[in-house]
Amino acid sequence: MTTAPNGGAGCLYGVGLGPGDPELVTVKAVRMIGDAAVIAYFAKQGRASNARRIADRWMKPGVTEIALAYPVTTEIRFDDPAYAETLRPFYDEAAGAIASHLAAGRDVALICEGDPLFYGSFMHVHARLKDRFRVAILPGITGMSGCWAAAQTPMSWGDDVLTVLPGTLPGAELARRLRATDAAVVMKLGHNLAKVRAALIEAGLAERAIYAERGTMAEERILPLAEKEGDDAPYFALILVPGQGRRP
Amino acid sequence: MTTAPNGGAGCLYGVGLGPGDPELVTVKAVRMIGDAAVIAYFAKQGRASNARRIADRWMKPGVTEIALAYPVTTEIRFDDPAYAETLRPFYDEAAGAIASHLAAGRDVALICEGDPLFYGSFMHVHARLKDRFRVAILPGITGMSGCWAAAQTPMSWGDDVLTVLPGTLPGAELARRLRATDAAVVMKLGHNLAKVRAALIEAGLAERAIYAERGTMAEERILPLAEKEGDDAPYFALILVPGQGRRP
Repeated sequence: MTTAPNGGAGCLYGVGLGPGDPELVTVKAVRMIGDAAVIAYFAKQGRASNARRIADRWMKPGVTEIALAYPVTTEIRFDDPAYAETLRPFYDEAAGAIASHLAAGRDVALICEGDPLFYGSFMHVHARLKDRFRVAILPGITGMSGCWAAAQTPMSWGDDVLTVLPGTLPGAELARRLRATDAAVVMKLGHNLAKVRAALIEAGLAERAIYAERGTMAEERILPLAEKEGDDAPYFALILVPGQGRRP
Repeated sequence: MTTAPNGGAGCLYGVGLGPGDPELVTVKAVRMIGDAAVIAYFAKQGRASNARRIADRWMKPGVTEIALAYPVTTEIRFDDPAYAETLRPFYDEAAGAIASHLAAGRDVALICEGDPLFYGSFMHVHARLKDRFRVAILPGITGMSGCWAAAQTPMSWGDDVLTVLPGTLPGAELARRLRATDAAVVMKLGHNLAKVRAALIEAGLAERAIYAERGTMAEERILPLAEKEGDDAPYFALILVPGQGRRP
């Protein structure tokens, strides 16, 4: 699980924290959070970091912290060239800040909501540092697993095909892909909810769809999509369309 | 996270244990395994239970155990009517054995590899008991997350579509679905490996594919599919086709 260039340097740990409940952190992640010299995390500008909040009870007092505050999140559309132009130097700087600790021989745990390698910002730091430093990955429970557990909804059975779709995709593509699958998760709802709802209706799946927000957290909100009023949703809310595969 | 029919009865906990490393069990699962009066788990006939092995260090001595041994696993093809006819009474009996403890007021933790609601046998017990007893689900890290962490492979980026495919599907369907996705996981390899490999070649994805067996366990084996010799594989081995989405 660990690659090993650069002997005297520290190791970069990508630490998955799971869907939100601090008790859904793994034993290994708790140990790593306690051992690392430096804890790094992403945050939305001007907001507390969700990752920092989940890890809080497991952090030792006085540990060095690096808060990496996104210059933008959803203010610029991701297909606008300005998005990449703004985020590229941000990830470069984030990687640089972490690299300086690693080069000095200090292990850095970059703590992440969910799983670090599943639609995670960690991957942009990983891509910049993996050839220069040792890296180890601690997987975490994904946000979608947290949501279907909270909804108590069996998600995929037997030979069901499960498709994970970002809500950022065009409506026609969403509808086409929803029609072609047995089970689906639509992530990154935010201001995409109206479009996603229309695609679910077009695919004949709106009745089966579940709206899930902050599954496993104190503020958890799970309801049939049909009962979700309005088209506002947090970016991390998602839709579950459970499979109905073979059941002996 | 808990529903509540049947007041004096025990609660059924579906406890995800993660991909195999006992340290990748969550803090909450460890607590539940220590608290439950009864621990139940599935096992292959005549073999030690993988779930039991992962949970071993967290179980308190002398706890009541229920081993649920499958009458068949892969000996009968799942689309053979004999498959359902053999497994239906097995799941009925498993649910019955658990129900008798619940009815007597004892909590039962049904411990499961990976995540209980993601292609899990737990769901067949859940379907039989959920209307009669309280149920709570503790999600776990999926086997696929464990494998991509072990492979240190970022799996899905930005607006990548990720498709999870059972290797049991026909080869032509696998190839068609592989061509239509950005990232893919093919589960349940076993004797399907030759067919899956042919589908990956047809979809032009064989070069990018990673073969992963028992990710995060001591016996872990991760290699490019191109270097995997022969067409034998354990049932729980899987193929990862990482996405290559936008990267600022």
